[in-house]
Amino acid sequence: MFRNEVTQFFQNLQMEICQSLEEADGKATFQADEWQREGGGGGVSRILQNGNVIEKGGVNFSAVEGAMPEALRQNPDFQSEEFYATGVSIVLHPHNPHVPIIHMNVRYFETDGGKRAWFGGGIDLTPHYIVAEDAQFFHQSLKNTCDRHNPSYYPAFKKWADDYFFIKHRQETRGVGGIFFDRLHTQDGFTMQQRFDFVQSVGKTFAPVYTHFMHKNKGLAYTDQEKQWQYVRRGRYVEFNLVYDAGTKFGLETAGRIESILMSLPPQASWVYNFQPTEGSREAQTLQQLVKGIDWVC
Amino acid sequence: MFRNEVTQFFQNLQMEICQSLEEADGKATFQADEWQREGGGGGVSRILQNGNVIEKGGVNFSAVEGAMPEALRQNPDFQSEEFYATGVSIVLHPHNPHVPIIHMNVRYFETDGGKRAWFGGGIDLTPHYIVAEDAQFFHQSLKNTCDRHNPSYYPAFKKWADDYFFIKHRQETRGVGGIFFDRLHTQDGFTMQQRFDFVQSVGKTFAPVYTHFMHKNKGLAYTDQEKQWQYVRRGRYVEFNLVYDAGTKFGLETAGRIESILMSLPPQASWVYNFQPTEGSREAQTLQQLVKGIDWVC
Repeated sequence: MFRNEVTQFFQNLQMEICQSLEEADGKATFQADEWQREGGGGGVSRILQNGNVIEKGGVNFSAVEGAMPEALRQNPDFQSEEFYATGVSIVLHPHNPHVPIIHMNVRYFETDGGKRAWFGGGIDLTPHYIVAEDAQFFHQSLKNTCDRHNPSYYPAFKKWADDYFFIKHRQETRGVGGIFFDRLHTQDGFTMQQRFDFVQSVGKTFAPVYTHFMHKNKGLAYTDQEKQWQYVRRGRYVEFNLVYDAGTKFGLETAGRIESILMSLPPQASWVYNFQPTEGSREAQTLQQLVKGIDWVC
Repeated sequence: MFRNEVTQFFQNLQMEICQSLEEADGKATFQADEWQREGGGGGVSRILQNGNVIEKGGVNFSAVEGAMPEALRQNPDFQSEEFYATGVSIVLHPHNPHVPIIHMNVRYFETDGGKRAWFGGGIDLTPHYIVAEDAQFFHQSLKNTCDRHNPSYYPAFKKWADDYFFIKHRQETRGVGGIFFDRLHTQDGFTMQQRFDFVQSVGKTFAPVYTHFMHKNKGLAYTDQEKQWQYVRRGRYVEFNLVYDAGTKFGLETAGRIESILMSLPPQASWVYNFQPTEGSREAQTLQQLVKGIDWVC
């Protein structure tokens, strides 16, 4: 059964990513919490705290099913009586402000007993300090993954990420973006197997890309001031997740497992009134690049 | 003109409260930022940072007017083409975890050229550690203020605060509540002047009540662990403000002055995965009291 195959892939992906991250971190191990959902299904949250490189991170797997939640029924896509949803969600907050925050989600949704089904997901990078070389490496890796499946994917999903990971009230992107996609089903000549192949590739791109940044930047020296800036940027991350992130909002509205949903929030964050970085500083340069439409790969 | 009288009162109230807080703090002074609203009106944000007692706080006054914002037009109460709104909003985050966070808002709204108008507002207290004596003093003060105007006010507005200042996804109240009221106009035999008299009393209750807590608790010793707990509680405050607070949501949706709206967010906050205080600890006792329906005054 297709849904079982997808679920199994996500479950394995969670394990593989946790293993890669533990190896790259060198100190902390993931703590696993299994949980059951009242309406059907459940998941396993794997949380890493106080590692060498990762200060707080979560790699969550879930496979939930049952009656369609009330909060979804207003949407014409969710008129069925029941649903099945499975996926992997990741957010990692590093200690070192020169290592970026990363997020990935890959998910599969089914209604009408499988007659309607689609994939969604995305990866986006939130550097506290934007470094062109790192942003280029990140986007090039995503483009390579996308291009192996379809040349239309990267430009479309890169733009989608720019629009999605946007803090509207700040008129500021969350970070340097990445890719975002949703409702990938059998339209435009694609089969569900082709969509699944693509989502598998996205999932497998995560660990090598992020461990590259961990290894490369974990040893960079940083000042107290840079740590303060990291806290301010984390505050923006909180603003995005609590105000805009669709997964978080859905989780809070449907009374999902709160600790798994809010694992995305940082260990420490700051809000400073009307913080304005010094003109020409690296902080100011970063702010200038938190805009939509930058082509990181040529 | 009634609206001018109300506006003048709020403007004076802001000044008086800032003066009282500066005196009680003994170190920091408020920094004033005047701002104009594109569609009409403006305000003055007064922000205090790194005081002796207050780590970060804002006392904001605004008087805005113009075309009814799109975000409000869906509401049947806001069908008029234009509006006028004025008020004072306060949030104070103290250094010492034994001094509570406090919030007050008093506001006046007019549509249809003044044919429809109402008052709203509230005060609520968020102690990091709930102390019965302090919660009683706070509620008794609010009850005294309410009772001077109408015996129905305190029980009704206390319950309203319990329901409003509630973090639904945590099933936890924000703090020990207080009073909350909205759409107070000429119903039930009240005149607008009587409503205004009440709102004036609420406004004037703020400074003596909060400076009482500042003086009483600012010298209490605290441990690193208690400071950590304060950060976790501040994280909950962020969750409430960004997910539920009607004023914040309205401000973000209507592109208000972001720095004034988000002055309510704490200087530092923490999220720890699945934090569970030790059984019987003061932290655990506080959590147990973050529930609706506690009668702090008899």
